[in-house]
Amino acid sequence: MKKVALLFVLSVLIFTCKEEGKIIDSEMPKVEQESPVTSIKEELDKANNLNINYDEDAQFSIVIHGGAGTILKKNMTPEKEAEYRAKLEEAIRKGYEVLKNGGTSLDAVTKAINVMENSPLFNAGKGAVFTHEETNEMDASIMDGKTLNAGASAGTTNVKNPIDLARAVMDDSPHVMLSGKGAEIFAAENGLEIVDPSYFYTDRRFNALQKIKATEKTELDHDDKQAFYDSDIKNSKFGTVGCAALDKYGNLAAGTSTGGMTNKRWGRIGDAPIIGSGTYANNATCAVSSTGWGEYFIRAQVAHDISAMMEYKGVSLEEAAREVIHNKMGKLGGTGGIVAVDKNGNMVFEFNTEGMYRASMNDKGNLKVEIYEKN
Amino acid sequence: MKKVALLFVLSVLIFTCKEEGKIIDSEMPKVEQESPVTSIKEELDKANNLNINYDEDAQFSIVIHGGAGTILKKNMTPEKEAEYRAKLEEAIRKGYEVLKNGGTSLDAVTKAINVMENSPLFNAGKGAVFTHEETNEMDASIMDGKTLNAGASAGTTNVKNPIDLARAVMDDSPHVMLSGKGAEIFAAENGLEIVDPSYFYTDRRFNALQKIKATEKTELDHDDKQAFYDSDIKNSKFGTVGCAALDKYGNLAAGTSTGGMTNKRWGRIGDAPIIGSGTYANNATCAVSSTGWGEYFIRAQVAHDISAMMEYKGVSLEEAAREVIHNKMGKLGGTGGIVAVDKNGNMVFEFNTEGMYRASMNDKGNLKVEIYEKN
Repeated sequence: MKKVALLFVLSVLIFTCKEEGKIIDSEMPKVEQESPVTSIKEELDKANNLNINYDEDAQFSIVIHGGAGTILKKNMTPEKEAEYRAKLEEAIRKGYEVLKNGGTSLDAVTKAINVMENSPLFNAGKGAVFTHEETNEMDASIMDGKTLNAGASAGTTNVKNPIDLARAVMDDSPHVMLSGKGAEIFAAENGLEIVDPSYFYTDRRFNALQKIKATEKTELDHDDKQAFYDSDIKNSKFGTVGCAALDKYGNLAAGTSTGGMTNKRWGRIGDAPIIGSGTYANNATCAVSSTGWGEYFIRAQVAHDISAMMEYKGVSLEEAAREVIHNKMGKLGGTGGIVAVDKNGNMVFEFNTEGMYRASMNDKGNLKVEIYEKN
Repeated sequence: MKKVALLFVLSVLIFTCKEEGKIIDSEMPKVEQESPVTSIKEELDKANNLNINYDEDAQFSIVIHGGAGTILKKNMTPEKEAEYRAKLEEAIRKGYEVLKNGGTSLDAVTKAINVMENSPLFNAGKGAVFTHEETNEMDASIMDGKTLNAGASAGTTNVKNPIDLARAVMDDSPHVMLSGKGAEIFAAENGLEIVDPSYFYTDRRFNALQKIKATEKTELDHDDKQAFYDSDIKNSKFGTVGCAALDKYGNLAAGTSTGGMTNKRWGRIGDAPIIGSGTYANNATCAVSSTGWGEYFIRAQVAHDISAMMEYKGVSLEEAAREVIHNKMGKLGGTGGIVAVDKNGNMVFEFNTEGMYRASMNDKGNLKVEIYEKN
């Protein structure tokens, strides 16, 4: 009886507190309406059981990004803008079709990213930026929210679609992350499309590298660190692509693919292939793909921190994403953003840069394609 | 008045619930006594401000591990055990001296790990295991809980002390993670000790590789995946080393160094160099170093998840570590453990294997050296 009485009093209290609005936030210990889950395993089991019931009308949704950065309308020609919008729409429609036809979120993520990898517009696959040594070294990762399985590859130079390699690492190896020549051998052994490294050459990216190298040379007080922090150089790294999706079966997935930073050296690995930083998916919470200044996304554990905040604090995806991008990663000094979907199909774009190439589609087929901060 | 009344009722209720013990866990929305922190930045600022007051009597502490796995007393000779205990004691005393003399937790972590890297007993540095191609490829990472800065290196073959390289990446580059040949060039440019790859040859590790390769060949139904999951092979990977420490200034740090898995191929990268998986430190919560089956530690985001659970759920380090190792990583199928220190100097060992080489020391100089699950 004592238990029941207590439960009743607490319920009344919670209701009263809710009515009082902000009082509860500022002056009292937090009472979360949706109490955080004690075991992720329980949540996963619950989510996976629900998924058995295939629902033709189930909500599904997909979000993509093509990089964040100093993207200003004044620097963009109408033709260039149209080109970006068209490619973003092509990519998201590709993923949407997969979901609509009953495909998995993993397939939708892979296919949507493939479209952007095969375009020279984005810093991934065909449009990858150049390293200091004038090579193209690509990173990618993917994660399955149902099983928490994941795959990643770092520093490959001849795999046409790095996201396919990340997927193969997840599906066909006992590993999560492969790198360099070894990853290329694995890709070839697993029948992925191998191209000559010259496939990744584009005038635009090569010229960007030369411009940065010239800037380095002419800066009297330059050192490697200074040159790297130069705003011209900093902004040249943007263009990573990524996708997060929820399928009809209630399964979340996220993936990210990138050429990294222009002029990167010493085998630098950014956040894109790092599970928890560039990519994270968990059916109990959300699926996230990051883009931006990778070092800060690793230090702030951006993708996993959003999920953890939802799981342990019981906040919404929107709130968690805002907090992590602006108050955590942002306050460390980082710039960039994320796209994410939660387990109910809610989609979020969040970034602290002037723009982010992005698009979303829900199960009603409603399409949104945006570039600037204020569209 | 209404606010004050509400506050009073809630306080009484919390007190009553506490008295009721477990009722609150099982039947009611969770009311955290210590409400989770809204901004990590605030916590960091607070922690850093406190640290300005150098306190001669401040609590400091240090924990190390030399790997977890199927370590059974029946398989160990008294001589071998004495050798491990002596080296663990040497390593932790090295770190302890740094802290006692007013050094930083980053220095203590680096120095303690150096001792284990320079010993053939552990799978790091001198004792690194062999890859499938009969090379030694080492990974390491380190993180500073005060600034959330971090450094990591993956797949180096000629850097004598990979933890020093991780430290140099953090201190002397704008990057968090470097890999392969590029990382080796960076190491040489930054004056780190470069050795001939043959320095890492040990009969013991080479023979272990040959044994595993023979097992692969003789298994009729073997495929790469199967061979990898074989328990002999699985256990051959243990021996990663790591350290977590709190210094007199209230700053936390953690570091990890490894040769990875025996027979690893395709440039496989495990959790040791992955910030958030193998290593994480945050003055607001704790410092963690992992050891075990790396793939599962990445998928479960072990090191960061422990910190996030403390931050957002307000639980103790002990509780968070137990939950993550046994109910999250463990239930995915992974094996291994962690050592960790929280911001108040509390130390935790947590593992789901038969043993973990480990040691701890607090500011009173109390030393603990343990190997088996039950010592």
